[in-house]
Amino acid sequence: MAEVKVVSMNSGDDECSYANNSKVQNTLVMKSLAYVEETLMDLATSGFPECLKLVDLGCASGPNTLLVVTEMVKIVGKICQKKNFAVPEIELFLNDLPDNDFNTTFQMVPQIFSELENGEGIKYGNFFVFGVPGSFYRRLFPSKSMHLVHSSCSLHWLSQVPEKLGNNKGNIYISKTSPPGVSEAYAEQYRTDFSKFLRLRSEEVVPGGRMVLTLAARSISDPTSKEFCCKWELLAKALQDMSDEGLVQNEDIDSFNLPFYTPCAEEVKDIVQYEGSFSLDRFESHELVWKDNENIFTKSVRAVMEPMLANHFGTKSFMDKLFQRYEMHVADHLSEEKIKSFYILISLTRKFV
Amino acid sequence: MAEVKVVSMNSGDDECSYANNSKVQNTLVMKSLAYVEETLMDLATSGFPECLKLVDLGCASGPNTLLVVTEMVKIVGKICQKKNFAVPEIELFLNDLPDNDFNTTFQMVPQIFSELENGEGIKYGNFFVFGVPGSFYRRLFPSKSMHLVHSSCSLHWLSQVPEKLGNNKGNIYISKTSPPGVSEAYAEQYRTDFSKFLRLRSEEVVPGGRMVLTLAARSISDPTSKEFCCKWELLAKALQDMSDEGLVQNEDIDSFNLPFYTPCAEEVKDIVQYEGSFSLDRFESHELVWKDNENIFTKSVRAVMEPMLANHFGTKSFMDKLFQRYEMHVADHLSEEKIKSFYILISLTRKFV
Repeated sequence: MAEVKVVSMNSGDDECSYANNSKVQNTLVMKSLAYVEETLMDLATSGFPECLKLVDLGCASGPNTLLVVTEMVKIVGKICQKKNFAVPEIELFLNDLPDNDFNTTFQMVPQIFSELENGEGIKYGNFFVFGVPGSFYRRLFPSKSMHLVHSSCSLHWLSQVPEKLGNNKGNIYISKTSPPGVSEAYAEQYRTDFSKFLRLRSEEVVPGGRMVLTLAARSISDPTSKEFCCKWELLAKALQDMSDEGLVQNEDIDSFNLPFYTPCAEEVKDIVQYEGSFSLDRFESHELVWKDNENIFTKSVRAVMEPMLANHFGTKSFMDKLFQRYEMHVADHLSEEKIKSFYILISLTRKFV
Repeated sequence: MAEVKVVSMNSGDDECSYANNSKVQNTLVMKSLAYVEETLMDLATSGFPECLKLVDLGCASGPNTLLVVTEMVKIVGKICQKKNFAVPEIELFLNDLPDNDFNTTFQMVPQIFSELENGEGIKYGNFFVFGVPGSFYRRLFPSKSMHLVHSSCSLHWLSQVPEKLGNNKGNIYISKTSPPGVSEAYAEQYRTDFSKFLRLRSEEVVPGGRMVLTLAARSISDPTSKEFCCKWELLAKALQDMSDEGLVQNEDIDSFNLPFYTPCAEEVKDIVQYEGSFSLDRFESHELVWKDNENIFTKSVRAVMEPMLANHFGTKSFMDKLFQRYEMHVADHLSEEKIKSFYILISLTRKFV
């Protein structure tokens, strides 16, 4: 098990654009595809199964959605060319929640098909794309059917906001000012959810089958560590500004808590070991440090959080105002301190017993 | 092979509403589900396969989309209760073209799941829903994987407008005034497409697997027979009105021909026999006769044709004007003559050789 730290996005670079920001996401996907390639090589020691079933959980929508699965198909093609194997039939399952925009992704499928058919020894009729609407905290596939499950930046979403948060007023996530029960309630919800995720997938993945997962996480075991919590404390501040200006009711802020959790490495390892269906083959972490570029940072947070915030707080004009205030707080903060994002990349094998 | 004629919608009934019109569609689906039930009984002589794979091709979108697959699940549940079989895992594949609205359908999946889990001995984890974006004139599934393929009112759509139509000016489909080559070009395109459909499905369906198909068709072998062609001749007339009023260019009408074909029983039987992969187990036909109710008839034609017409001719206001004129022509016609719709329902088995 290799443990590597990659620091990027420490910038100060004027040319730092939104494209550069999505480059980071891309770097994560590319790192994870390196794992996928290794994994597929392992799965193909004596040829692939006749029909190879590959999954992307939390595929989202937009141009990058099909990137992972098309890269997977190309990797299979390359391995077959290199090892002189017959190309298997490949089923590609794209999963996300039922209210995800699958239409946009599906409309891009024909173009992706034509591109794939022109290279890597892949031919028409070799691969099939399916959409899978549903939460990955429920069963999605038949028993012992999937060979490789991939998920990038989705597993930090909890199945729900923890129930017993108590009085977390003025906060929207774990914070230094939260009562002691809050971080335990979040950690407990994460244990429940990630354990359930592993158990459900253990039923669906063939013995010897693999999972390659990228998770938003934290590098420090203290969940109230400022470097990781500050981005949500600053968002709570921006909401408080809105309340001070009479643009939102305090009750609406008090009733809002984020339904996600960023675990530390030990939590992830413990849960995998305790649940017991999968062995942990590889573990790698990536730290992104933000020193300035409040605008890009704000955009990247907004891109992820807006649908959920808008669902609770309403209109686009409210969001515009909220993120104007957020960006100011982020700028203040970055002028004195850094903000960290941290990712864990793991590769797991379904045990035979 | 039973051959039955059912005449309905001959109305003259003032209470005949759009709901009544969709009742007819429903009757067709219910008839086809009776075949599906028989078929599933046959497939389950000594229990179901561990994982039963069921397909609906051309599922469209909207509230009725999930009707067929949920009924299939209920039928499987009932058979298992009656025969004391273990309920298999069931994969439900919903197929349509990539630009179909899958989002609306997917958003209804959670509700359907809860409903199904409350009856017929079906439990959580028994069934899985997948969207399959693609033309059924291409491969959609891995080899020898599907147990039952269902399709209702989709297989009259051709893969393209026939290429060699010659001069079909003033018409938009086969008509008495079309040059002799037109009906042969349509019939030839249908032979090519339906043969290809059968060959592709023969690769995907397990030996002994089944297909239940409902096709828009005609009861008379002459493809220019007025009873079946008049609805498109009247639509061509309405387009001509629009042209006379300067609302559309004549070239736009001349370049438009409908990409579908309604075969007669003999054509369907001949193609199935000639292609050779499937045996024809059952054959049934339904004739709908329209004697008045031009408004309902117009609505039903518009519901099916609008997306394609709008794609060629444009805006909603154009469509409103076109179908106002169409309804007048239909009313004139129905005051003197009837219009027929005709459907063929077939059940096929994948041969073992």
